Amino acid sequence: MTLMRAAVFVEPGRIVLEDKPIPDVGPLDALMRVTTTTICGTDVHILKGEYPVARGLTIGHEPVGVIEKLGSAVTGYREGQRVIAGAITPSGWSNACLCGACSQDGAGTAHGWKPMGGWKFGNTIDGCQAEYVLVPDAMVNLAPVPDALSDEQVLMCPDIMSTGFSGAERAEIRIGDVVAVFAQGPIGLCATAGAKLSGAAVVIAVDRLAGRLQTAAQMGADHVIDASQCDPVEEILRLTGGRGVDVAIEALGTQQTFEACLRVLRPGGTLSSLGVYSTDLHIPLGAFAAGLGDHRIITTLCPGGKERMRRLMSVIESGRIDLGAMVTHRYKLDDIEAAYDLFSHQRDGVLKVAITP
Amino acid sequence: MTLMRAAVFVEPGRIVLEDKPIPDVGPLDALMRVTTTTICGTDVHILKGEYPVARGLTIGHEPVGVIEKLGSAVTGYREGQRVIAGAITPSGWSNACLCGACSQDGAGTAHGWKPMGGWKFGNTIDGCQAEYVLVPDAMVNLAPVPDALSDEQVLMCPDIMSTGFSGAERAEIRIGDVVAVFAQGPIGLCATAGAKLSGAAVVIAVDRLAGRLQTAAQMGADHVIDASQCDPVEEILRLTGGRGVDVAIEALGTQQTFEACLRVLRPGGTLSSLGVYSTDLHIPLGAFAAGLGDHRIITTLCPGGKERMRRLMSVIESGRIDLGAMVTHRYKLDDIEAAYDLFSHQRDGVLKVAITP
Amino acid sequence: MTLMRAAVFVEPGRIVLEDKPIPDVGPLDALMRVTTTTICGTDVHILKGEYPVARGLTIGHEPVGVIEKLGSAVTGYREGQRVIAGAITPSGWSNACLCGACSQDGAGTAHGWKPMGGWKFGNTIDGCQAEYVLVPDAMVNLAPVPDALSDEQVLMCPDIMSTGFSGAERAEIRIGDVVAVFAQGPIGLCATAGAKLSGAAVVIAVDRLAGRLQTAAQMGADHVIDASQCDPVEEILRLTGGRGVDVAIEALGTQQTFEACLRVLRPGGTLSSLGVYSTDLHIPLGAFAAGLGDHRIITTLCPGGKERMRRLMSVIESGRIDLGAMVTHRYKLDDIEAAYDLFSHQRDGVLKVAITP
Amino acid sequence: MTLMRAAVFVEPGRIVLEDKPIPDVGPLDALMRVTTTTICGTDVHILKGEYPVARGLTIGHEPVGVIEKLGSAVTGYREGQRVIAGAITPSGWSNACLCGACSQDGAGTAHGWKPMGGWKFGNTIDGCQAEYVLVPDAMVNLAPVPDALSDEQVLMCPDIMSTGFSGAERAEIRIGDVVAVFAQGPIGLCATAGAKLSGAAVVIAVDRLAGRLQTAAQMGADHVIDASQCDPVEEILRLTGGRGVDVAIEALGTQQTFEACLRVLRPGGTLSSLGVYSTDLHIPLGAFAAGLGDHRIITTLCPGGKERMRRLMSVIESGRIDLGAMVTHRYKLDDIEAAYDLFSHQRDGVLKVAITP
Repeated sequence: MTLMRAAVFVEPGRIVLEDKPIPDVGPLDALMRVTTTTICGTDVHILKGEYPVARGLTIGHEPVGVIEKLGSAVTGYREGQRVIAGAITPSGWSNACLCGACSQDGAGTAHGWKPMGGWKFGNTIDGCQAEYVLVPDAMVNLAPVPDALSDEQVLMCPDIMSTGFSGAERAEIRIGDVVAVFAQGPIGLCATAGAKLSGAAVVIAVDRLAGRLQTAAQMGADHVIDASQCDPVEEILRLTGGRGVDVAIEALGTQQTFEACLRVLRPGGTLSSLGVYSTDLHIPLGAFAAGLGDHRIITTLCPGGKERMRRLMSVIESGRIDLGAMVTHRYKLDDIEAAYDLFSHQRDGVLKVAITP
Repeated sequence: MTLMRAAVFVEPGRIVLEDKPIPDVGPLDALMRVTTTTICGTDVHILKGEYPVARGLTIGHEPVGVIEKLGSAVTGYREGQRVIAGAITPSGWSNACLCGACSQDGAGTAHGWKPMGGWKFGNTIDGCQAEYVLVPDAMVNLAPVPDALSDEQVLMCPDIMSTGFSGAERAEIRIGDVVAVFAQGPIGLCATAGAKLSGAAVVIAVDRLAGRLQTAAQMGADHVIDASQCDPVEEILRLTGGRGVDVAIEALGTQQTFEACLRVLRPGGTLSSLGVYSTDLHIPLGAFAAGLGDHRIITTLCPGGKERMRRLMSVIESGRIDLGAMVTHRYKLDDIEAAYDLFSHQRDGVLKVAITP
Repeated sequence: MTLMRAAVFVEPGRIVLEDKPIPDVGPLDALMRVTTTTICGTDVHILKGEYPVARGLTIGHEPVGVIEKLGSAVTGYREGQRVIAGAITPSGWSNACLCGACSQDGAGTAHGWKPMGGWKFGNTIDGCQAEYVLVPDAMVNLAPVPDALSDEQVLMCPDIMSTGFSGAERAEIRIGDVVAVFAQGPIGLCATAGAKLSGAAVVIAVDRLAGRLQTAAQMGADHVIDASQCDPVEEILRLTGGRGVDVAIEALGTQQTFEACLRVLRPGGTLSSLGVYSTDLHIPLGAFAAGLGDHRIITTLCPGGKERMRRLMSVIESGRIDLGAMVTHRYKLDDIEAAYDLFSHQRDGVLKVAITP
Repeated sequence: MTLMRAAVFVEPGRIVLEDKPIPDVGPLDALMRVTTTTICGTDVHILKGEYPVARGLTIGHEPVGVIEKLGSAVTGYREGQRVIAGAITPSGWSNACLCGACSQDGAGTAHGWKPMGGWKFGNTIDGCQAEYVLVPDAMVNLAPVPDALSDEQVLMCPDIMSTGFSGAERAEIRIGDVVAVFAQGPIGLCATAGAKLSGAAVVIAVDRLAGRLQTAAQMGADHVIDASQCDPVEEILRLTGGRGVDVAIEALGTQQTFEACLRVLRPGGTLSSLGVYSTDLHIPLGAFAAGLGDHRIITTLCPGGKERMRRLMSVIESGRIDLGAMVTHRYKLDDIEAAYDLFSHQRDGVLKVAITP
């Protein structure tokens, strides 16, 4: 039995590098040799014990790599091919997938779906902060990487870019909309870029860190608001002449940002929520117009699947967006514990960390 | 100056019949002689002081009548014509209207919209529980009543039917959907009918009153659940084999029903909210899948305008729905105080009360 | 090698019953023992040589049956289970499927899709007018049949009902719409039912056969027009007071019906086209408003997949539609040549023929 | 009676400058003093007698100007205010407007809509190639011009930009789409820009004039194809690896470009048609996949109204698009006959001509 190195969850506070067997390949699977991966905010939730996973699980859901071995029923690929897989790995054959809720394809049992079931890598099955990762339903999930693109150029596709863009897409932004994006972490920055790419006339980016606001401006924000210096709700209402925004995107997962989104929304506007919340939410009656504001609140889990990945990579290849600047630090897999330390404490202006086995 | 009888708000607890001048007709207005109107749950909120309006305001927003006088700039109608107007009276010329948020057309000032502004009759201008009512922007709002339909047959169009149906429409119900409707008051009953009319395979109606559940079954509900006898969330999950519903419609305006809607929703499902809430709302983390359930929460204010009214009346005329059974009691305008007394205490199985001046 | 009986295409004019080997089961496949199937208008096109298929191909794409054997990679089913599969059998893993064009999932090669590729049974692979049929991508395509439903009750789901309903669905019919359906063959009848089920206030059914118009009225048509007796365009404009229809559904596949659809459409209306055309089409300038009518022309190929089948069966199970009356004749597989003779000549008021091996 | 100069249609081949009375102002109207206007391709159709209008009609539908006088029922504006009005002037109160077909609001009679009725200026009422123009339904149609924008900067909003952008909007372009735009006249160029603004990863512009292709590249086209040098269908299939495009936009109004759009469409793709056709159209069976390609053909007439104008001007103000380069020539109103001569012969690389009274 051959072994590989993998970052596994041991207990709250401890993700450590261990030796694990390289997994066997089932008929629909593919084994990917990971060449680059990264750490996500959700992984930090796992590290801190805020989001529970099984002890011994390999963490990570953003794989870039090379096909090492294909399952016996997998066609259309060749070993050695450069590929990525989305953070969310739909089966393609579940009822959830077939009725348009691909990201919610989890259980597949007769008794319905589990809300988190759609997210498998590093949640319900071993993830990709390892030398190898087993990709389920490979024909649905493996997306070939164009030769012209480097690993780091596509590293944001599996999760950050797919999630951030979906915040703009699901809100159905129209040409000329005014959009506010609350929080400019990696997902918020991609939401900012996605809003701009969708035709927003004005994108207003909110955060509390000057460095992130600077990056937001580079990604296309027309206005940036430092929430540590002023009340962003008042500032947005001032900027829009009291009209409010057509779309507000929540990209942090807190009561404060969720509520601020509601408060800046024009009647008939849309709150597009991307954040992973860790507490109950509270909707103030006034911010909700007592239920009479023709509002929409839409939550979205990162869309996955190879076609989604193909599209996102085509946007990068076209030069319409450059997410390279989001990789601020680089670590070897052997040093992933140090990477977690840096990332979880948000030190040194870190946005995303590239990890290479 | 000629006088008319009108039900006006005096102070919390008191809506009384008074003499008021028949209003002057501006160039875009029409004066309607009211032949039938009704009392809405919102009027009861006003009566109780829970929703504030100006003292002396005439209440009521569901007018059926005859054109008495047309404004100088109004064309396309004739005096004596039988018409209705929606509860919500869009101007047709506001930016809100022109960007698809007709029900939110209120202020029309440079400083944006007011959430409640779209509702004018009996809220910001005099309403129709009176002998006459002035209809603003008449060319947008007056809908001729087909000869074949009686006053009572179209009495639900201005508010109850338009609101209830919009709960189904805005949820984008698809053929084969499973839909739960929480609360079977007049609006909930119309939501039940609207869900059925939209192609739902299974409609589950929830209420605490046996009489209303019986009416719900007549309006098309496949299953009825008496929430006074069991936990409707558990019962709905049982009925759907644990799958949950595609769409849940809230038609009461309480925390309990709002939360129950979230708890029965399948991942990717839609909560369509029609209720007028009177308290802040609370979203339990689990019921919201921590923001990862691909849910949509959509609130809708009653759509108005003459084209909407034309469509609703065409549905009635086609025989696809019969709302006649919803008029359970009849009063003269002179006895409207007694009608309020009955309706606000929900006595005698009352659903809707027809008021005739 | 075990043999089975199968209806195969030999040459234009000849579909004959032959012995063929029972197919081997690949890892993603399932072998279905066919218990009931039927003949489609498209099969008649094949018979007549109007639509080319390979010689020796087994015809038929509407299977009801029992799982005989499951592929090695197939999970979630058991042998002996009653199932249907859609006429169109998407893979679930193609880029077409994953971008929402499941019915167009055909080739799966790097060089794109073939327009007809999505239809496989009896077109590019052996079909189901046989004792056994091999279902590709079984986990995507096998839909368990509820115990309460008989074979004949679900026999229309794979093609006729799925196609007909999709005509209404893709047109995005709204409550209160006026809809005209041109041609009341099996698909047109299902489009009529689907339009009604979608909330149309008025459905106008057009055909040249009195018997079919009678069935159309039973399926929910409010008006029927015998096109052999009058000009249906004039009649529809008369019925709608010159306004035209919101949606016109084409369910025959001829220039005449296509053009009539355009001519009855209101500005801003939608032509939903289901027919399989066999000639070029001609768009008269006036009927098309010179391109300025805000029209939509939408073509749809029968949606497939197990979730689609589940939904359609749930509609039947709910009692909202009864397609049993569409099976007008019954034949043994051994007599299928006689069935083709009857069906292709549209004798004896035939709508659909049930074939049982 | 005061007179003004106006360009009027006299007979095929002759549009001449004449003296006409300055129009009276009805209660819902506004009189605009025109400061800048332009000539459209449709005006050339009128000049040539290809599109019939009444003799003596003032031509022109793209007004930029100043409010000279407001109708008695018009509120919310002040005389002297800088405004534009869209080429299409919806009433706001017609049933067409109220059911979402604003551009089709024409007749307003009981007997339905006339396809061209939505276009009034220079078609059914006097247009704006004059010193003054009467704007109907002023509150719906007058959009204040931001101080920061010059006349020429907003001159494309009333027609060219609104139409071109709508080609992208109505096609529901998604982030990552591949879009082909056939013909790069002023509307095609705006469609190219609109496609890019909507998130297309790849925009392919087709024309036969090198100068226009150069402008297309400046407006955001990723590839340009000179149709005088190669077969654009073959070239587009080559560029997309045989896959075809997600959206093809027709911006010329000819059989050749319409058919080419169909031929480059992927299964499930959308043809968005903007051109004004002058002949019947022909749909080849193969290009239409015999009706089985899940295609959509959508035609769009220029959206109008003040909210549309506000949005378009906000896009210009945000700096996301610069249409200044499209004004290639400038004339005084007194010289408009010379301007027609230049424009109708497409001399000197003309794109658009600014006309100032």
